[in-house]
Amino acid sequence: MSSSSQAGWRAQLKPGNPPKSLLIVNKLRTKVVVDAIDTLLAYVREKYPTLRVFHEDRPDIPDGVEVWHPGPNAEPVDLVVTLGGDGTILHASSLFKVGAVPPVLSFSMGTLGFLLPFHIDDYAKALDSAFEGRATVLHRMRLSCQFHSADGMPMDAHCEDWQVMNEIALHRGSSPHLNTIDIFVDGQHLTEAVSDGLIVSTPTGSTAYSLSAGGPIVHPSLSALVLTPICPRSLSFRPLVFPSSSTITLRVSERSRASAGLSMDGQVSHVLGPGEAVTVQASLYPIPCINRSSIAEPEDRTGEGAGPGKEDDWVRDINNLLQYNATFRSKALLRHSRT
Amino acid sequence: MSSSSQAGWRAQLKPGNPPKSLLIVNKLRTKVVVDAIDTLLAYVREKYPTLRVFHEDRPDIPDGVEVWHPGPNAEPVDLVVTLGGDGTILHASSLFKVGAVPPVLSFSMGTLGFLLPFHIDDYAKALDSAFEGRATVLHRMRLSCQFHSADGMPMDAHCEDWQVMNEIALHRGSSPHLNTIDIFVDGQHLTEAVSDGLIVSTPTGSTAYSLSAGGPIVHPSLSALVLTPICPRSLSFRPLVFPSSSTITLRVSERSRASAGLSMDGQVSHVLGPGEAVTVQASLYPIPCINRSSIAEPEDRTGEGAGPGKEDDWVRDINNLLQYNATFRSKALLRHSRT
Amino acid sequence: MSSSSQAGWRAQLKPGNPPKSLLIVNKLRTKVVVDAIDTLLAYVREKYPTLRVFHEDRPDIPDGVEVWHPGPNAEPVDLVVTLGGDGTILHASSLFKVGAVPPVLSFSMGTLGFLLPFHIDDYAKALDSAFEGRATVLHRMRLSCQFHSADGMPMDAHCEDWQVMNEIALHRGSSPHLNTIDIFVDGQHLTEAVSDGLIVSTPTGSTAYSLSAGGPIVHPSLSALVLTPICPRSLSFRPLVFPSSSTITLRVSERSRASAGLSMDGQVSHVLGPGEAVTVQASLYPIPCINRSSIAEPEDRTGEGAGPGKEDDWVRDINNLLQYNATFRSKALLRHSRT
Amino acid sequence: MSSSSQAGWRAQLKPGNPPKSLLIVNKLRTKVVVDAIDTLLAYVREKYPTLRVFHEDRPDIPDGVEVWHPGPNAEPVDLVVTLGGDGTILHASSLFKVGAVPPVLSFSMGTLGFLLPFHIDDYAKALDSAFEGRATVLHRMRLSCQFHSADGMPMDAHCEDWQVMNEIALHRGSSPHLNTIDIFVDGQHLTEAVSDGLIVSTPTGSTAYSLSAGGPIVHPSLSALVLTPICPRSLSFRPLVFPSSSTITLRVSERSRASAGLSMDGQVSHVLGPGEAVTVQASLYPIPCINRSSIAEPEDRTGEGAGPGKEDDWVRDINNLLQYNATFRSKALLRHSRT
Ligand SMILES: NC(=O)C1=CN([C@@H]2O[C@H](COP(=O)(O)OP(=O)(O)OC[C@H]3O[C@@H](n4cnc5c(N)ncnc54)[C@H](O)[C@@H]3O)[C@@H](O)[C@H]2O)C=CC1
Ligand SMILES: NC(=O)C1=CN([C@@H]2O[C@H](COP(=O)(O)OP(=O)(O)OC[C@H]3O[C@@H](n4cnc5c(N)ncnc54)[C@H](O)[C@@H]3O)[C@@H](O)[C@H]2O)C=CC1
Ligand SMILES: NC(=O)C1=CN([C@@H]2O[C@H](COP(=O)(O)OP(=O)(O)OC[C@H]3O[C@@H](n4cnc5c(N)ncnc54)[C@H](O)[C@@H]3O)[C@@H](O)[C@H]2O)C=CC1
Ligand SMILES: NC(=O)C1=CN([C@@H]2O[C@H](COP(=O)(O)OP(=O)(O)OC[C@H]3O[C@@H](n4cnc5c(N)ncnc54)[C@H](O)[C@@H]3O)[C@@H](O)[C@H]2O)C=CC1
Repeated sequence: MSSSSQAGWRAQLKPGNPPKSLLIVNKLRTKVVVDAIDTLLAYVREKYPTLRVFHEDRPDIPDGVEVWHPGPNAEPVDLVVTLGGDGTILHASSLFKVGAVPPVLSFSMGTLGFLLPFHIDDYAKALDSAFEGRATVLHRMRLSCQFHSADGMPMDAHCEDWQVMNEIALHRGSSPHLNTIDIFVDGQHLTEAVSDGLIVSTPTGSTAYSLSAGGPIVHPSLSALVLTPICPRSLSFRPLVFPSSSTITLRVSERSRASAGLSMDGQVSHVLGPGEAVTVQASLYPIPCINRSSIAEPEDRTGEGAGPGKEDDWVRDINNLLQYNATFRSKALLRHSRT
Repeated sequence: MSSSSQAGWRAQLKPGNPPKSLLIVNKLRTKVVVDAIDTLLAYVREKYPTLRVFHEDRPDIPDGVEVWHPGPNAEPVDLVVTLGGDGTILHASSLFKVGAVPPVLSFSMGTLGFLLPFHIDDYAKALDSAFEGRATVLHRMRLSCQFHSADGMPMDAHCEDWQVMNEIALHRGSSPHLNTIDIFVDGQHLTEAVSDGLIVSTPTGSTAYSLSAGGPIVHPSLSALVLTPICPRSLSFRPLVFPSSSTITLRVSERSRASAGLSMDGQVSHVLGPGEAVTVQASLYPIPCINRSSIAEPEDRTGEGAGPGKEDDWVRDINNLLQYNATFRSKALLRHSRT
Repeated sequence: MSSSSQAGWRAQLKPGNPPKSLLIVNKLRTKVVVDAIDTLLAYVREKYPTLRVFHEDRPDIPDGVEVWHPGPNAEPVDLVVTLGGDGTILHASSLFKVGAVPPVLSFSMGTLGFLLPFHIDDYAKALDSAFEGRATVLHRMRLSCQFHSADGMPMDAHCEDWQVMNEIALHRGSSPHLNTIDIFVDGQHLTEAVSDGLIVSTPTGSTAYSLSAGGPIVHPSLSALVLTPICPRSLSFRPLVFPSSSTITLRVSERSRASAGLSMDGQVSHVLGPGEAVTVQASLYPIPCINRSSIAEPEDRTGEGAGPGKEDDWVRDINNLLQYNATFRSKALLRHSRT
Repeated sequence: MSSSSQAGWRAQLKPGNPPKSLLIVNKLRTKVVVDAIDTLLAYVREKYPTLRVFHEDRPDIPDGVEVWHPGPNAEPVDLVVTLGGDGTILHASSLFKVGAVPPVLSFSMGTLGFLLPFHIDDYAKALDSAFEGRATVLHRMRLSCQFHSADGMPMDAHCEDWQVMNEIALHRGSSPHLNTIDIFVDGQHLTEAVSDGLIVSTPTGSTAYSLSAGGPIVHPSLSALVLTPICPRSLSFRPLVFPSSSTITLRVSERSRASAGLSMDGQVSHVLGPGEAVTVQASLYPIPCINRSSIAEPEDRTGEGAGPGKEDDWVRDINNLLQYNATFRSKALLRHSRT
């Protein structure tokens, strides 16, 4: 199993080198999730008996599963399996803050999402493709950030080494007042933004909060940073797309009436006061996400018989999820019921 | 049958005064439309034998139907029935350029649209509600316009007395160059717009071209004019909503590199050169459109048993047609198919 | 001095009936504001010696000025003068929660704003026009609201009788999670919104928060309600404009993961939990705002010599403030400095 | 003088290898342009006497300047100088359809633009920096395209080898009807678009037509394609950003009521009928545009004394041209004039 180190590029997992350890990640403990974990465990124990299986520390982890603690001294993990919604992958990402991340196989519990290529019913096919080295991955870029106090000194923030998959968002939160934030790109002043807040998003995050705030949809294999204002007072402030080599600094203006709450992938981390700043950059450690096309049968493919991984899941998802092709009229058809 | 003369307000059709003449309007002559006309004719001849039935002059109008010519000397019409898409009502509207318009009963041939309250299969119920004076109407505002030459003189344009239901649009058409258009509101200069064009829309038209260009959705019972720029160079030019008492003048700037094609309800009418202008105002003659709730059974209603016409078709349509409540997630559910 | 009771319409102030009492409203106590109040007081004492002058209760109110307490038993006020920014008028509005509001004369301290027709240096001209009954007013619509608990009962909220000039906004505030809010129009379900929040705005407020969130600009003499979503997950949720006769109810869904903070004109008032609702309606009590054109000299006017109040301040403001006519190019010109 | 062959990256021009031939490009023949050409010619003849100077074939080309014909057999050109607006560079680009393009030095005649780094008064400094190998370039990506007939065969279109700097746009032009266009990305169907048209833009073109249509602003050093719909009927069709390695095919649907006019950098080229398609890809031949920072004095620089070419002209332009930092309020200040 190999994974190119360049963010945003697909790599073939290597045959002949099956994962030796597996980390199961789930947020919810609903019956459907618990049952799915049991089924999956039964399957891997039968088929891959030497595999070590880990789980985060929780009172109720399944029998025979070892407790896993994140951090620099974590036990090595060769494959991550997530069960749940998009938020479950975001959580899995947050467990790997240091160093390279193992490939992630994400199962939905019934609804498919942007970050959920596999339906839980396909667990066997999907696991086998990973174990047999047939899986292909999309390296989803992540962001890392650094904090600076009002006097420009690096701040010793506990979340210093947080890695985000979707976005870093600064927001006025429950303050009734607009933020004033100075934006710098590679050290150069871009503008002063008076707004509800600002989002620095990865291409992956471009379909999350940034999209709701009016940002463009960016293909996850592009290496780019998206800067999207949230309800800006200036009508001319449009979303901007930068190369992933750019460094973006957001500094709460000394004149700002409000401080700004910082969230990373939807987790509120801390609050920046006037003069304080966060600097955002592409992280060295993308998340290798296993593609749905890894398990596609040749006959499923569109186009002229491209091999595994050639088809672009994302293009299909965009078409399906956003229903681009739905004009008002065809939507009307969906509901067509007589009065 | 009565209809308040104020645009945008609902009025009850009067019982005891059934329509004496009916105009059938259709654009397409597909078999399904022809059959529907036949069925409808059979019904009204049987049930309302004294009714005169008219149709526009066409080689193939049905037996016993009289030819009708629009214009100041047109035969009086008490009820209009349209069969087709939204474009068919726009066409019906264009037949009534002078004076008040009779109530319009619009049937869709299978797809429901914004302007198509009735499904053709409900023809009997719908006609009966109109003949028995139980129907309620929504007075949809229309626009009228006047043209001025570069020296400010009124221009003798053949479409002087056109009445539009959706919008008046100025557009660069096939010219590669941007238009420069000066906008005046009640004679006062609002701005100079450099863009692909401009739309002046009714609330009815707010879900047509104006919406595609980024305009707001305006309830058709509001008396208002919507001014929406099409691809403006200025980022700060946002859609504007004016009271229907406003007069909006669009004048192609003398400096404009391109002339501007004028369309009314999607019909290209003529081209304005530099210095020429069009002045748009609410027309005196709205279109009384019969509501779907006219035929609703008491038990169909939401809310606490409001009488006919109390329910707001439009609110329901907006919900259904635009699928507001569809987040990405619920859309994903629609397609949920295993890989 | 008269003022039509209909929101959004202009009325002529009546000659021969000068104000007998004046309320001065200011938020800041900066030297420039304090000096301006002194100058203004000296002027009215000299010119209108019988005038009673009021001020809100503050330790440092000027000599000879009487303390004024808002509420049902407040001393009658014939004219309000505000000195400060747009927020100062919003504050003045909040002082008049019950019954009709006296005309408001708003002075800026140097910057002109949307709600600030007069420059402080013009105080004499502006006051005289009001005292001599030459002033014209724009009745700016306000909103009132009612709260309902999860069981549908009216809630005894202390802000029950708040009146807002700009908008009522529901927002997730510092919760990281999206709100789910059900929207009803005249009791009919419009849609379920998953978003950062929702804004119900007056035409006046259409250039405030609603504009930042992507809403249209609505002329303040139109009687309308604007519903603008804040960062909605559904891409098809566009701003909507309703007649001012509509009643809009926003109910935090039982399924909402977050409660929603409610702000009125930027003041956080309270928090709605799942099942709780706010119902918004046009208030009976608009704010009569004195127009800048009240003091325009005949020769200042554009157009063909319209009388006072005929010119539309707002159209000019829109042009100036939003710089509609600024294409990128002409903006470039502004800065044109050689390298 | 060197130029990296990778689109979108900056390279240092090489010292010790001054240009031997110069092509002057201008569209207008106004006195100010003619005078500027004369001044510039006098300067280069004096300072670089061996330089050959070319101009396109026109009746009035200056004395001693040789006629230059574009095409595969064109005389080699080492440096292009443009005098005029952004359109002049677009025209210069259109002269180089085959093979690599020499560096382009663009002078504005007074207004600065996105593509016009130099003011004409700086001609000496700017030319010297190019001749002495001190200039740095930004490689602006271009697009090339291929046409296919309804039966899928490559079409022998005369503009087959056109290279575009800004965008390829399909538009309904003067047809009143919406286009229906199928979009394919790397051969996979993305969606069917019902709209006025579609834009495929380079990062350079992201501040041109695409921006007016609602697209994001993309840094020109990112290698990406932007797909922006023009007035789409589907509310959920948002602008999309793809890696520059993507191939985008736009095919007019067989069901489309209108054919689609194709323009390249604002030049209407030809019309695609139902079934016909255009395929767009990043071209091998970007345009090396000389940066303004090439002539900046060390003391002009912001930041910590970065060497020539380190400062990002574009970030400064975005700030200046779009006036991001202008909230309504500060714009109001600009105009602050007493009533
Ligand atoms: N107004 C908005 O749109 C807001 C969006 N968010 C997003 O929520 C994310 C956190 O997600 P949860 O913990 O699940 O919170 P959550 O349970 O509040 O869900 C957020 C929604 O966003 C979806 N989502 C998450 N990542 C996505 C992606 N990359 N592309 C498309 N859809 C995506 C989820 O499926 C879910 O529907 C944040 O990273 C942020 O992007 C957070 C706050 C406001
Ligand atoms: N980019 C765009 O969205 C454009 C839209 N149009 C619209 O097309 C209208 C003419 O319609 P047709 O003759 O049927 O031409 P058409 O056959 O080209 O159809 C236009 C589409 O707009 C729909 N439509 C028409 N009026 C509507 C309304 N009031 N609300 C919601 N949808 C509406 C029709 O159902 C149809 O789907 C024009 O009045 C204009 O509003 C015209 C050109 C471009
Ligand atoms: N993201 C945004 O745009 C937000 C806007 N606001 C607005 O701020 C208002 C409260 O104002 P302040 O107490 O002064 O707070 P503030 O001091 O935070 O100022 C808000 C800004 O909005 C301007 N403003 C207020 N009303 C306006 C109107 N009707 N038209 C145009 N501009 C207007 C003010 O001049 C000021 O520049 C709220 O009613 C809300 O509309 C509040 C929160 C976020
Ligand atoms: N509605 C719109 O915004 C439209 C824009 N255009 C643009 O015009 C371009 C052709 O330009 P011209 O021949 O000069 O025609 P033109 O004389 O009609 O000018 C178009 C405007 O776009 C500006 N412009 C051109 N390229 C730009 C860029 N890359 N970034 C920022 N501004 C730019 C020009 O300075 C000028 O202000 C096309 O490539 C297209 O991008 C063309 C049609 C409509």
